[in-house]
Amino acid sequence: MTEEMEVLFEKLTAFYENRKYADLRILLLDMEPTDIAAFMEETLGDKDQIRFFRLLPKELASDVFVEIDSDTQEHLIKSFSDTELKAVIDDMFLDDTVDIIEEMPANVVKRILASSTPENRKQLNELLEYPDDSAGSIMTTEFVALSADMTVAQAFDKIRRTGINSETIYTCYVTDGKKHLIGVATVKKLLLSQMTDIIRDVMDDSPISVETLEDKEDVAMKLSKYDFLALPVVDKEGCIVGIVTVDDAVDVLQEEATEDIQKMAAILPTEKPYLKQSVWNIWKARIPWLLLLMISATFTSMILSGYEEKLTAKSAVLYAFVPMLMDTAGNAGGQSSVTVIRALALNEIEFKDIFKIIWKELRVSVLLALTVSIVCFAKLMLIDSLYNDISLSIAAIVSGVLFTTIVMAKFVGCCLPLIAKKCRLDPAVVASPFITTIVDALSLIIYCSVAIALL
Amino acid sequence: MTEEMEVLFEKLTAFYENRKYADLRILLLDMEPTDIAAFMEETLGDKDQIRFFRLLPKELASDVFVEIDSDTQEHLIKSFSDTELKAVIDDMFLDDTVDIIEEMPANVVKRILASSTPENRKQLNELLEYPDDSAGSIMTTEFVALSADMTVAQAFDKIRRTGINSETIYTCYVTDGKKHLIGVATVKKLLLSQMTDIIRDVMDDSPISVETLEDKEDVAMKLSKYDFLALPVVDKEGCIVGIVTVDDAVDVLQEEATEDIQKMAAILPTEKPYLKQSVWNIWKARIPWLLLLMISATFTSMILSGYEEKLTAKSAVLYAFVPMLMDTAGNAGGQSSVTVIRALALNEIEFKDIFKIIWKELRVSVLLALTVSIVCFAKLMLIDSLYNDISLSIAAIVSGVLFTTIVMAKFVGCCLPLIAKKCRLDPAVVASPFITTIVDALSLIIYCSVAIALL
Repeated sequence: MTEEMEVLFEKLTAFYENRKYADLRILLLDMEPTDIAAFMEETLGDKDQIRFFRLLPKELASDVFVEIDSDTQEHLIKSFSDTELKAVIDDMFLDDTVDIIEEMPANVVKRILASSTPENRKQLNELLEYPDDSAGSIMTTEFVALSADMTVAQAFDKIRRTGINSETIYTCYVTDGKKHLIGVATVKKLLLSQMTDIIRDVMDDSPISVETLEDKEDVAMKLSKYDFLALPVVDKEGCIVGIVTVDDAVDVLQEEATEDIQKMAAILPTEKPYLKQSVWNIWKARIPWLLLLMISATFTSMILSGYEEKLTAKSAVLYAFVPMLMDTAGNAGGQSSVTVIRALALNEIEFKDIFKIIWKELRVSVLLALTVSIVCFAKLMLIDSLYNDISLSIAAIVSGVLFTTIVMAKFVGCCLPLIAKKCRLDPAVVASPFITTIVDALSLIIYCSVAIALL
Repeated sequence: MTEEMEVLFEKLTAFYENRKYADLRILLLDMEPTDIAAFMEETLGDKDQIRFFRLLPKELASDVFVEIDSDTQEHLIKSFSDTELKAVIDDMFLDDTVDIIEEMPANVVKRILASSTPENRKQLNELLEYPDDSAGSIMTTEFVALSADMTVAQAFDKIRRTGINSETIYTCYVTDGKKHLIGVATVKKLLLSQMTDIIRDVMDDSPISVETLEDKEDVAMKLSKYDFLALPVVDKEGCIVGIVTVDDAVDVLQEEATEDIQKMAAILPTEKPYLKQSVWNIWKARIPWLLLLMISATFTSMILSGYEEKLTAKSAVLYAFVPMLMDTAGNAGGQSSVTVIRALALNEIEFKDIFKIIWKELRVSVLLALTVSIVCFAKLMLIDSLYNDISLSIAAIVSGVLFTTIVMAKFVGCCLPLIAKKCRLDPAVVASPFITTIVDALSLIIYCSVAIALL
């Protein structure tokens, strides 16, 4: 938190505690809703939160409510009278209401739906039916629709009339009598046109749109690619049913990046911020992979046990380099897999690029393996020989195997995510920890068999 | 690429190759600049790229040029006549010109600056001086400035006059005679006001702004937090010098997520898309950490060598579980460090939360360690005993040490990124691979010393 914000929060607390409500309201009117929400969450107890919320200027209440975390929202709703709830719900955009409903227990959802107007209730129920990761689930149905034969002046009248209830007014959608999306007109374009111009002549008549069931991540990437402020969502008949705005797209991109990072670190994706998650939920997100990877390490134990007698008969020193070999192979494989996974997520590469990628990784891996194994050879002869009995042949075998395992690890690391994508699996799930297990087992087998064969 | 886009690209190729330039232009006018850029990069050779670019409708040329990758941009600029270059540069927004200049060799930069108007050249030179990761480096100086005593009607006139050259017109900035930022007025607010209203009365007079040297990631996070379309950038005197728009903020957030992911996978951050990077550059980004981690594995080799005689004297079986212990500890530590690093990046936690975080991770880690070590004990007795001679005491020691190392790994994993942040180091750099090395060494020491002491 910035100092400026801390001073502001102290002022708010002072006004609130000394019941200087007029001063409080003046201060609040100048604040952003998200900052007021942060103040309520961080400074006030349960009872004060509801008391404070009732003091909010009416025009701010819904905006603040949307920004509050879902536990506090639930607590507030339970304290609201029906009239209060109705006032808050009526002022909210439908996509925000949907977001809130999705986090609430069934009895609270019932109350929210009961407090909505019949028209909104119908739309809410429709929105709630879209799958969790679809364009439909993040869109709002409140946008400005124009018709093609309006004049620009009439369009501005329409914007003024419906604008206050639309999430964005800057991109208007032109439809025919049957709600088919036939064009897009930005307010910028309208402002730079003559008031008597006809919308048909100023609109862009090849609008880019997405379908309701498209993956929300693809929608967000598309919006970002074209630098739009909003994207229209159409149903199978090409009728516009809603829009996705850039602020929601940004949230989707951030969430997806977080999810990918979690998966790469062997954590099941979670949605809540870290400090809001219960110990139990964190356990649930982390235990499956931790267990699975622990059990799959049985392979490495089996391999080591199998080679044990033969290996120690050759040289007891060989065991000491097993962790170094496995770690380096794991790191090398992780570098390739993570690079490929992120490039897939950013749409920089597709499955059809697989041979280009393998060829590139092959060249990179040979260069990397050469550097690392030469340095390793030098390290073995200069450093490790100080505390261990390292013969030239052992140093050569360790660095030779290191070379092979790095190339092998990079090959596995770049192929697996691409194959996962092709099989419609999530590339991020097969990332580092999973690949580490495969690469561990392979490098152990190579190491043990080469050492036994050559020594 | 979507099928629709492939069909479009085939049509473009056909028109282009059969010299049906009129049809080509009609098709192009309906396309988005970024799609035209993709067509040029993916379908055309060097010579055709410049020929095709000259066929672009004049109003599209700059927009397409901005979207092309930097290698092609350089090639095009080298083929341009001075007049052509001037036309393209004049039509570009200044922040886009800055982005291009930063990628070009010195002689091309010289030509670009020489082709700019004196006014633009001055501003470009100023923009180029801001540090690479600052708000100044991503802002544009082209915005709509209003004065407080204008009427709304006059404001719209100003927007119409300057709008075509501003990156966004939807947020206008109100300044006093000395360019101090005193308010913000959105076009939505203006449209919903009376034409005779005075800007002073309709503007928001406590605008949120950032300073020129603020970290661009913080700026992007702020813009996303407040759901703004643009943020004003002010200098130390509070004078507005530019704005950062939401599309650039989205790019920054995506880049930062990519960088964090790369750092977590022990790769130095790179800016170019994967397929555009040379083998040499990929090598440079990957070799430092790979070498460093390989060399730091000397510790594990030393530890294993040191304990070797004593360990094998107790039981030769013990070696077989070293990889399992180390991998599980690494995975457990990685889960915690990555969670903390991402929460730090999203501003969900700060250093002052360290005790809250340690307390939470401690409870989670005890739960996780308990589950994993119980399962491990069962696995040792049921599965591993099939191929190895596992006594009850060995199984107890291995699972007991596993318990300890998981708790220890989670503690190290959550503390290190927070301490790094406090020391103004990059938390992502100390992530998984680095923590793995520490955790590896610690768990080996615990394992060997416990086994030797207890068996």
